[in-house]
Amino acid sequence: MHLPQVPDIIDSELAQRLQQKLDNKTKPLGALGRLEGLALQIGLILNTETPALVEPQLVVFAADHGLAARGVSAYPSEVTWQMVQNFLAGGAAVSVLARQHALALTVVDCGVRHDFAPQAGLLVRKLGPGTADSSCGSAMTLAQCDQGIASGQAIVRDLPGNALLLGEMGIGNTSAASMLLARLTGHPLAQCVGAGTGLDAAGVERTCALLHQVLALRDGARTPLPALAAFGGFEIATMVGAVLQAAAQRRVIVVDGFIASVAVLVARELAPAVTQRCVFSHRSNEQGHALMLAALGPQPRVPAQPLLDLGLRLGEGSGAALAWPLLLSACLVLREMASFESAGVSGKAE
Amino acid sequence: MHLPQVPDIIDSELAQRLQQKLDNKTKPLGALGRLEGLALQIGLILNTETPALVEPQLVVFAADHGLAARGVSAYPSEVTWQMVQNFLAGGAAVSVLARQHALALTVVDCGVRHDFAPQAGLLVRKLGPGTADSSCGSAMTLAQCDQGIASGQAIVRDLPGNALLLGEMGIGNTSAASMLLARLTGHPLAQCVGAGTGLDAAGVERTCALLHQVLALRDGARTPLPALAAFGGFEIATMVGAVLQAAAQRRVIVVDGFIASVAVLVARELAPAVTQRCVFSHRSNEQGHALMLAALGPQPRVPAQPLLDLGLRLGEGSGAALAWPLLLSACLVLREMASFESAGVSGKAE
Repeated sequence: MHLPQVPDIIDSELAQRLQQKLDNKTKPLGALGRLEGLALQIGLILNTETPALVEPQLVVFAADHGLAARGVSAYPSEVTWQMVQNFLAGGAAVSVLARQHALALTVVDCGVRHDFAPQAGLLVRKLGPGTADSSCGSAMTLAQCDQGIASGQAIVRDLPGNALLLGEMGIGNTSAASMLLARLTGHPLAQCVGAGTGLDAAGVERTCALLHQVLALRDGARTPLPALAAFGGFEIATMVGAVLQAAAQRRVIVVDGFIASVAVLVARELAPAVTQRCVFSHRSNEQGHALMLAALGPQPRVPAQPLLDLGLRLGEGSGAALAWPLLLSACLVLREMASFESAGVSGKAE
Repeated sequence: MHLPQVPDIIDSELAQRLQQKLDNKTKPLGALGRLEGLALQIGLILNTETPALVEPQLVVFAADHGLAARGVSAYPSEVTWQMVQNFLAGGAAVSVLARQHALALTVVDCGVRHDFAPQAGLLVRKLGPGTADSSCGSAMTLAQCDQGIASGQAIVRDLPGNALLLGEMGIGNTSAASMLLARLTGHPLAQCVGAGTGLDAAGVERTCALLHQVLALRDGARTPLPALAAFGGFEIATMVGAVLQAAAQRRVIVVDGFIASVAVLVARELAPAVTQRCVFSHRSNEQGHALMLAALGPQPRVPAQPLLDLGLRLGEGSGAALAWPLLLSACLVLREMASFESAGVSGKAE
C-alpha cells in the first residue's frame, strides 16, 4: 500500500508573522479568543498570511456493519441505505446544513448493503456488501482495509478545494469506533462505549459485554491496520485514506464527532502530522469522545479542543457543517480586519 | 416613561407541536442537541412551526464614560470614537462578521465624546457628551436614563426584520456593567469585576477598589433605573430600551457578552418576559459573565446557556454575529429536514 507523505508544517517564522498580524488587528490582544488560534492554524495549513477557504467538500462515508445484527444499535441496518437516500434527496440534517453553508456534498457508498441507482452526488466505492460480523471473525480482510485506504486517497485526490469536512453514516459504527479507541489507546472499554444513536442503559451494557468478547477474540490485532480490519468498518477505512490524502495536500480537515475522530486516530498512527491539519468541530455527546479528543491533542497532556459543545450526537458531518462558518470567520479576521495603524485607533494606555 | 407590554409567550400547545415536529425529523431523538432547544425557542418567539429569520439587524450602541478618566480601562477614551469610525469603515471585527453573515449593521452614537460627520449606518442619538464621572456623582440623570430607554425603543421600532443582535462599544463600560451586576444581583463586587479589554492584575485590583467606593457613594440606588442612572452608561440605557421594544415585537434578541447581558438584566427587571426572547450567543471570558448568565437563566437555579464558548472578550456584537448561523441552522432544521415518514426511513428497532 502506498501512503502519502505528510510532512510537519509548523513553520515558526510564519507562525510568528501570523501572530503579529493578529495582534495588530483593531481589538485587544487575544480578544477574539479561540478564533485567533484557529486563524493561526489555518494560516499554517494553507501556508499563507491571507488564508482563504475555497470549494469546501463535505464527504459522507457510508457503510454497513455485520455486527449490527447483534443489536448494538438502536436502529436497524436498513437505516444506513435509507439515510444515504435521504442525504442525496436533501432531507437529512447534513443536507440542510451543507446547503446553508454552500458545502459541496458527496456521499460515498463504501459498502452499504444496498444497490443504489447512479445519481448525482453519490460515489459507489464498495469494499463489500457491509463488513462481516466482527463477533465471529475479522470484520474485513487486510486487503479490504488497504483497498479502503487507497479508495479514500483517490476520492480526495479528485476533489477540488482546500478543505475537507468529514461525515459518516453506518448503523453499528459507534461500536467499531469504541473498539478501535479502546484498542489503540488502552483505555478500558467501558469508558469507550456510549449510547450511540440512542441505546438505553441496558442496551449500552449489553453492547459493552459483546464488544468485550470481540476485543478478546481479536487480542492479536494491536496495531492500527490489523485493528481496523478486525473491528471495521469500510467507511472508517476509506475515511482514513481521505484524511491521509487531505493532510498530504495541506487541506484543512474539519473533523466531525466520535466516528470521524477515530479515523483521524488511525491516520495519526500512520502519519503523526495529520492532526496539524485537523480542526475538531464539536464535542460529541458520545461518552468516549472526550478520551478521543485527549488522545488527539497537540501534545501528550493537552486534549484537542473542539469549537462547539452543543450536545450533538448525530454524525453525518452535521457538527463539521455547523462549525464551518467559524473557520470562515477566522480567515476573514486575518484578511479583512484593519490594523491599529491603518484604522487610526490608539493602542493601550499603559 | 412609556414602557411597552412584554407578554408571556410560552404557548404549551405550540411548544408540543414544535417538539413533535423535531422528534419526527430523520435523526435520533435529541441528536441535534442544543440546536433543537434553540429551534423550539425561535418557533415560540416567532409563533410558528416554520420559523424564518428575516432582515437581521446588528446594532452597536456606543457611548463614552466619565469614569474612564479614572483609569478603569486599558485603553484611552478616544478609542470609543475611533472604533465607531472603524465599524463604519468596515475594518472592525464586527464589520467583518456582519458582512460575512449579511447582517445589517447600524452604529448608534448614544453619547460618544466626538462629533461624527453624518454617514451611512450611523444614527446620532446622543444623551450627552459621555456620562459624568460616576465616582463624583451620578453618571446620568434619571431623565437621561428615561430618554435613553425611549431612544432605544424608537430605534428598534424603525428597523425592519424579526431579529436584533446586540453590540456595544464604550471605553469604561465593563466597569458600569460590573457595578450594575453587583448592585442588582447582590453578588460581591470582587466577583463581578474582571480584566475588561485587558487590565493586568494590579489594574483589576485598582478598578475594584474604585468601583467599591462608587457603589458606596450611591448606596441608595438599589432599583434598576436609579442604579442605571448612577453607574451608567448611555449605551446601556439605550440598549435597555432596544431590548424592551424588540421583546414587545417578538423579535429574536441575540445577546452578545457581558455588557449586552447587563442591559438584558435591567430590562428583565422592568419586564420579566424579555428573556424568553433572548438567545445568549457566547460565554464571555469576562469573569462576571458566569454570574450574569446565572441571574438571567430561565429558572432560578438554571443558568442561561450560551451557544458558544470561545473565550471571546471583545464586545461590539462580535459573539452575537459568530453565533448567528446557528440560529439560521435551527430554523432550517425545522423547515427543511424530512420526517421519518416523508423520507421512508425506519424508526428505532425497539
